[in-house]
Amino acid sequence: MSSNRPSLPKGTRDFSPIEMARRNYIFDTIKKVYKKYGFQQIETPAMENLSTLVGTGGDESDKLIFKILNSGDFLAKADEKALQEKNANGLTKLIAEKALHYDLTVPFARYVVQNQNEITFPFRRFQIQPVWRADRPQRGRYREFYQCDADIIGSDSLLNEVDLIKIIDDVFSELFQGKLNYTVSVNNRKILQGIVESIGETDKFEQIIVAIDKYDKIGEEGVTKELEKLKITSRSIDELYVLLKLREARDIVAIEDKDDVEKIGMPQYGINQLEILERNINSINGVRGIEELESIFRNLDKLELKTANLKLDLTLARGLGYYTGTIIEVKVDNFPSICGGGRYDDLTGKFGLKDVSGVGISFGADRIYDVLLDNNLYPKFEGDSTQVLFVNFGEKEQDYCLPLLFQLRDEDINAEIYPDVGAKLKKQMTFANNKNINYVVLVGSDEMNSGKLTVKNMQTGEQHAFTIEELIQELKK
Amino acid sequence: MSSNRPSLPKGTRDFSPIEMARRNYIFDTIKKVYKKYGFQQIETPAMENLSTLVGTGGDESDKLIFKILNSGDFLAKADEKALQEKNANGLTKLIAEKALHYDLTVPFARYVVQNQNEITFPFRRFQIQPVWRADRPQRGRYREFYQCDADIIGSDSLLNEVDLIKIIDDVFSELFQGKLNYTVSVNNRKILQGIVESIGETDKFEQIIVAIDKYDKIGEEGVTKELEKLKITSRSIDELYVLLKLREARDIVAIEDKDDVEKIGMPQYGINQLEILERNINSINGVRGIEELESIFRNLDKLELKTANLKLDLTLARGLGYYTGTIIEVKVDNFPSICGGGRYDDLTGKFGLKDVSGVGISFGADRIYDVLLDNNLYPKFEGDSTQVLFVNFGEKEQDYCLPLLFQLRDEDINAEIYPDVGAKLKKQMTFANNKNINYVVLVGSDEMNSGKLTVKNMQTGEQHAFTIEELIQELKK
Repeated sequence: MSSNRPSLPKGTRDFSPIEMARRNYIFDTIKKVYKKYGFQQIETPAMENLSTLVGTGGDESDKLIFKILNSGDFLAKADEKALQEKNANGLTKLIAEKALHYDLTVPFARYVVQNQNEITFPFRRFQIQPVWRADRPQRGRYREFYQCDADIIGSDSLLNEVDLIKIIDDVFSELFQGKLNYTVSVNNRKILQGIVESIGETDKFEQIIVAIDKYDKIGEEGVTKELEKLKITSRSIDELYVLLKLREARDIVAIEDKDDVEKIGMPQYGINQLEILERNINSINGVRGIEELESIFRNLDKLELKTANLKLDLTLARGLGYYTGTIIEVKVDNFPSICGGGRYDDLTGKFGLKDVSGVGISFGADRIYDVLLDNNLYPKFEGDSTQVLFVNFGEKEQDYCLPLLFQLRDEDINAEIYPDVGAKLKKQMTFANNKNINYVVLVGSDEMNSGKLTVKNMQTGEQHAFTIEELIQELKK
Repeated sequence: MSSNRPSLPKGTRDFSPIEMARRNYIFDTIKKVYKKYGFQQIETPAMENLSTLVGTGGDESDKLIFKILNSGDFLAKADEKALQEKNANGLTKLIAEKALHYDLTVPFARYVVQNQNEITFPFRRFQIQPVWRADRPQRGRYREFYQCDADIIGSDSLLNEVDLIKIIDDVFSELFQGKLNYTVSVNNRKILQGIVESIGETDKFEQIIVAIDKYDKIGEEGVTKELEKLKITSRSIDELYVLLKLREARDIVAIEDKDDVEKIGMPQYGINQLEILERNINSINGVRGIEELESIFRNLDKLELKTANLKLDLTLARGLGYYTGTIIEVKVDNFPSICGGGRYDDLTGKFGLKDVSGVGISFGADRIYDVLLDNNLYPKFEGDSTQVLFVNFGEKEQDYCLPLLFQLRDEDINAEIYPDVGAKLKKQMTFANNKNINYVVLVGSDEMNSGKLTVKNMQTGEQHAFTIEELIQELKK
């Protein structure tokens, strides 16, 4: 029946062997770098109590949570009234007490609070797992996708930020091999606060930030419209832009002392912009944020970045409510963010553990996957699959080949024999070709008599006569 | 608020860094062996369409499926009548169209059918992913647990069974290091069919098999009671036991020619039992099953097993409806099954692809985890975590240490600096101890003047003065 033709839920997908090899290459690279910086891996279950997840990322995030129907008679506890009124919202919590995590940060916060007595702080943990979001699927956005998170919790030292940006630099230097430009944009929530305080609109901080965050997408005109809707006076809007527009060093230079840039140095990191901003901003919060960023930039300048373009971006807010200090985002041209993160001062507060500062980043493996594919940046993954195939000419030949096959395997060489006796040679060679097998061993009566196997190199087409020991030596080269 | 104290859904759990290291060790071992045998990794999403999953493993399996509530207004499409009658069963399919997979075999079958034109058969795939079952949680049984599956699809050669049993032998030889006894029990569904045909009860095959499968748990008396309930005559029950009781070679010897065992040889694999059974069974099906097992046993005898105890177990059925040939189960004393599998001739039939034979096994990673832990069989995992910690004595020392720290990292040495300036030395040393860090680097004014770092070996307590280059050499040894 064609009605039985199987499909996948929208926004989800399978990974074929080659896709797995590519994805594992990304995971392995990130994992190796995380470990180099002292991070330890943990894993949390896919499902959490719904009460753990709701109310951490705001209403919009709550809608993205996939809820799991209670098992058994889930309607027994259901509210009669909600049922009759078909009130889905009111019913959800009664019939679905569990849900799939939509990020790795909230489960990590829950983990830290639950295991606070066993953990040695500052705790550097990494976590590579799928997350699920009931988002509208589109190119580059899936409903099930992998996040690769690293967080340091229990330390407010800015060295942690330095490490995270160096990790980003290490990971993309390796993955992009210097062949692709990428930008690490950095901001600090306190600077945004300072700027909003400076223009006297502290009460509307959240809404103003949401508007500014869209600068990339809707431009100055769009942002102005949103700010006007918030009843910000045009004087304040102008003031806001003067402070924000410090993004481009050149802009400042025009209105300030031209010598400033030379004097302060490191214009590529925007430190000069920060120092000028410091003189123009009227907020203790803002000044603290500026000092934090300066410390990070100075250390990175001393340690040097391999390939990352580091950039101050005063419009960067990354929506999420929980950032309180540094904000980080990594972009490649024409792609949505491939990595992001920041500092949060009260992530574990919801679970009863106050005043624990943390900072973290998250690599979006699925987008990085696409970037590497589009730019032809994957290595060849040789040796990952089968290296040797024994052709199967018949019962007698099969009996002769079996012990040889296992001799290769015991030497950790990936090898197989075509399992079906009497399959046509052409079919077996096609099998070897499709599976990218490097060497095919052909054994007929001549070979069984002489003990010399005919070994065909599938790339060059050359054939050689080898004893099994010689073949092992050849393969171990 | 204490009501906010977080917890996990029952039957699920977190994995701490040491638990992750152990679990990754198991995964890596299995993965390496799978690749050695030519298997390629794929991954399927956690969620499938509910219609893909239901009706494959029978009603009991369907109850174990965790369903995912449709997003948005899930009641809009709900049936009024089912709502008013609080008919949970009738409502499920309307409000939950997706579900979490409860094994990796059904998603694999779906994958094969969907990608049949891209796949080169015979297809050897492996898959290591969590699965979810709404089972009653108990010791060793979780609601979220990992399966490590390998299947060969599109070949009915019995060499595939030989490979799978050799894989089991390779994996447990490495994990158990020869220090733990384990038994690989093998049976063939066709033999069970033959035995049931022989006693003339073909119609009641399924029920009889379900009863026999419990032999391990409820013994002969219990099985007899169940068979009587099925209205099997006591004459047939006796006959059934005569055929089944061939489990112990000794039993046969008592009623047959004593020389048989010696003559046929390999009593350890039960081949003699098979040949005697062949003479006593009256069924073409049964004889075919016996011949299949004999072929597997003879090849394994020739190739030799490293540590596995291979055993014929005629009561082994492994409940699951879809096995049609070989059945495999691996056990360690006092533990539930740690690996199982078998051959199925129509797994993809449900999705419209007929007559594709497959055979596979699945390692239960969570149970293997417990077995290794109980028997103290884990290696030490040195080098997996941080190797070097720089103690942080103050701003000036920190500035001095930072470039040295990155020199180590650039040499792929896992290293970190204690991030918080001015933390007490004792606190920093405790941190190093708890994190099992091997070397602690102490840098004060003396060290900064001389360029010789004081390096403390945390295991021996010894201290040495090293330049950074000497330290790198020491660590690379």
